[in-house]
Amino acid sequence: MGEARWGPRERMVFSAAQLIRRDGVAATGMREVAAHAGAPRGSLQHYFPGGKEQLVNEAVGWAGRYAGKRIARFLAGLERPTPSGLFAAMAAQWTDEYAADGFTAGCPVAAATVECAAAGGSTREAAAAAFATWRSPLAEALAGMGVPAARAASLATLMISTLEGAILMARAERDTAPLRTAVRELGPLLDAAVAPAP
Amino acid sequence: MGEARWGPRERMVFSAAQLIRRDGVAATGMREVAAHAGAPRGSLQHYFPGGKEQLVNEAVGWAGRYAGKRIARFLAGLERPTPSGLFAAMAAQWTDEYAADGFTAGCPVAAATVECAAAGGSTREAAAAAFATWRSPLAEALAGMGVPAARAASLATLMISTLEGAILMARAERDTAPLRTAVRELGPLLDAAVAPAP
Repeated sequence: MGEARWGPRERMVFSAAQLIRRDGVAATGMREVAAHAGAPRGSLQHYFPGGKEQLVNEAVGWAGRYAGKRIARFLAGLERPTPSGLFAAMAAQWTDEYAADGFTAGCPVAAATVECAAAGGSTREAAAAAFATWRSPLAEALAGMGVPAARAASLATLMISTLEGAILMARAERDTAPLRTAVRELGPLLDAAVAPAP
Repeated sequence: MGEARWGPRERMVFSAAQLIRRDGVAATGMREVAAHAGAPRGSLQHYFPGGKEQLVNEAVGWAGRYAGKRIARFLAGLERPTPSGLFAAMAAQWTDEYAADGFTAGCPVAAATVECAAAGGSTREAAAAAFATWRSPLAEALAGMGVPAARAASLATLMISTLEGAILMARAERDTAPLRTAVRELGPLLDAAVAPAP
């Protein structure tokens, strides 16, 4: 992801996202973020005058952009792009991570939603924006494969919902089975949504 | 749910589940749970010698049993039980709650997973057990409607994954659309899994 060339601000946003992925929002302290990023603690106040809420919101925004950009990379990696192949690639990112690193981390947007949606602060809006940033290129990719536009939007929502829930179950059970089940069960439904060539 | 007849222990477990649903695990304090339950703070130590971790685990266990028992009630409420009708009833519990009370609360098992899975404590196991307690009667219900047993287990996992993710997206977006999309998109797939009568 090219973190090595990032400045301290970018490193802190990335570190916040990684710590939130692991422990959630409340358990992620500003001091810990600075240490993880190798940045002086004083620089947090400089770069994030809005404090922890600003940093969390930027981490959530980063995650949404990251997930959104991955869609094009997944597509580029598919020899013959299909909706089921794209969904399998989205899930494989998680099964690969869990195989390599254990079930340590989940989705930071999920954590921000679970912990911050009720409080009524700006983090709930940041989470909504992150989902939108992820869903939009996904729906476009489906449309590009021949799924009618209205259906593409619905299926993009379904794919993200199912993936988010399967990540939760996989972490709780320390087993990638829910992710593999999601791919196996949703694949045919997704491919059946491609309109036949005229 | 008959809370009025519960003793202080049951009320505290229920209160913990409700507060975790709203704010997550870390933001839910023991003092707040006692106040919510109308119980003396000293009674927490008496009933939960294992402290907050024990109380959180019991709240998560309560949620799993609650979700598991709802399956039979949803089935009883369907004139002609179908997999899609059951899934619609499961989602309607959430769309009804969000319409009545706003998007204040999510699933406590999701919160426990997001915040506690990495820590390696007993709460991760409690979350896994809660998902199992929910999935088992759901798979049985699908099998009872004619879905072959192996497929019923897969589809139960898919239904819970999709519902959990749709709850997250609905709370983030303050919109029940992801829940309604899940019902509309998964319904035909679920009904198609019913084996034809011989």
